[in-house]
Amino acid sequence: MPQDPRLIIVGSIGIDHIETPTEKRTNLLGGSASYACAAASFYSQPGMVGVVGDDFPQEFLELYDSFHVDRTGLQTQSGRTFTWSGVYEENMDNRSTLETVLGVFEHFEPTLPKSYCKAPFVFLGNMHPALQAHVLDQVENPDFVLVDTMDLWINITREDLLSVIGRVTMLTLNESEARLLTDCHHLSDAANALLNMGPEYVLIKKGENGSILFGKNGVYIQPAYPLCPVQDPTGAGDTFAGALMGALTEAGSASDSDIRQAMVEGSVVASFGVEAFSLERLQTLSRQDVTDRVAELRSMMAVEI
Amino acid sequence: MPQDPRLIIVGSIGIDHIETPTEKRTNLLGGSASYACAAASFYSQPGMVGVVGDDFPQEFLELYDSFHVDRTGLQTQSGRTFTWSGVYEENMDNRSTLETVLGVFEHFEPTLPKSYCKAPFVFLGNMHPALQAHVLDQVENPDFVLVDTMDLWINITREDLLSVIGRVTMLTLNESEARLLTDCHHLSDAANALLNMGPEYVLIKKGENGSILFGKNGVYIQPAYPLCPVQDPTGAGDTFAGALMGALTEAGSASDSDIRQAMVEGSVVASFGVEAFSLERLQTLSRQDVTDRVAELRSMMAVEI
Repeated sequence: MPQDPRLIIVGSIGIDHIETPTEKRTNLLGGSASYACAAASFYSQPGMVGVVGDDFPQEFLELYDSFHVDRTGLQTQSGRTFTWSGVYEENMDNRSTLETVLGVFEHFEPTLPKSYCKAPFVFLGNMHPALQAHVLDQVENPDFVLVDTMDLWINITREDLLSVIGRVTMLTLNESEARLLTDCHHLSDAANALLNMGPEYVLIKKGENGSILFGKNGVYIQPAYPLCPVQDPTGAGDTFAGALMGALTEAGSASDSDIRQAMVEGSVVASFGVEAFSLERLQTLSRQDVTDRVAELRSMMAVEI
Repeated sequence: MPQDPRLIIVGSIGIDHIETPTEKRTNLLGGSASYACAAASFYSQPGMVGVVGDDFPQEFLELYDSFHVDRTGLQTQSGRTFTWSGVYEENMDNRSTLETVLGVFEHFEPTLPKSYCKAPFVFLGNMHPALQAHVLDQVENPDFVLVDTMDLWINITREDLLSVIGRVTMLTLNESEARLLTDCHHLSDAANALLNMGPEYVLIKKGENGSILFGKNGVYIQPAYPLCPVQDPTGAGDTFAGALMGALTEAGSASDSDIRQAMVEGSVVASFGVEAFSLERLQTLSRQDVTDRVAELRSMMAVEI
């Protein structure tokens, strides 16, 4: 009998159509829950919470199985699966959304399987903050909750978002979102304003420039791995967050040292993820590959050698 | 009798007029040699090589003296001192030049005092690469030469620049300049192409995102100190480079470990420098302030705490 998952991850599950400066790919498995669960699976068997339509390809379900993702919490509903089409600009730094079809995601009401309700680690992927709160309501006293968000929710559901942020251990967002949510230009001012909203940690994502963790005990700077050939940056933040939460779940604790080590892992798994479209690089990745690159990245971060 | 300087620094010396989103300041001491010498002076007494006009204020000469800069190599010529006027955009990331008056810098022919010619450490600040080569020609077998450059020289004096790059230990430039000089989009490809031009190290400056060192023995990632309130980023790269070279000179050697430690120092001194206009913050800075922030930055970079 499978064990109850110690980490649950809720988020979008989507079909992506992606155009980069060099390539155009359609019908890819995407969505924050897909990336985060695949990344987390290198450390712990995550329980996935999400919804797909009855058009969702069987091969994608099998792909989740190949990562040993627990999909008891994955609902299938009549209708279309959430779909996102996007195009990256020349430098890969900016992207535009061409089309979003919400499909069954529009009326998603995540109900947790009973086996998920005592999970100590919870990742609330980017989606409507009321849904994030609804998931959190169903988990009994989690030890560590990470929430992600985006500019859309900051703009249209600020109160719901502030309410969720007040209930989590760590908030993650990117630089411009941190400024948007706080009206502070300077990153450390924005981080302090976010810490005052309730979370113990604020993790600012800076893409190819890594990430910075602000906490009550200080700041930690996590550089990105600089040598990976980026083919598709889609899902990098979710991959980072999924691996981070997986590593914390594997550690079974979340001290400042545990979090820093988990951020190295997140940075490394994300650096592999962007080397190919969708989950294609993670599919061929071994834990040893991750371990080797963690050692390499740590040597790049070490002052004394 | 003063000792011969073990570090010599050549570059521009200018009068700056600077406008930031919050403040407008005129008649500031600027120029790459000013910033780099002041920064280096926390570690070693640098010998300055540069030129000023007969309009150059006596108080600026006294300011150099307060940093114990050896100005035997500073020429005064009849005419105007080099002047730069610039304005920073809202986010401080971009700036526009309003006016440049070359003045006496236009026909600058740096001749080194005899006391400078055996200096083991040399920083060739950003200027015409033929002038950089002319300085280098006058130094007998230096141990470590750092050269800085900019897009202007890449565009109009590429051959001269390539010739200098082939003679130095370390090349420093920013990300876009690295791409411009190599036609490589990916930073690590650009860095490898630059290493193939001759230097042992290529140091890519990324502003508030720190810097990355590429060398034959591997990569080192130096984060910027994230908590300083930036008032004026002018000269940050020169301050970084000056402190780096000062720290190497103080160490008296340039192993990979020495260079990494010197990059922490450079990052910290630069983080102080941007907290005020011109050299105003460096004037009040103590070595203990630097030491304390180095410890703080290193704690922010440490995975194990």
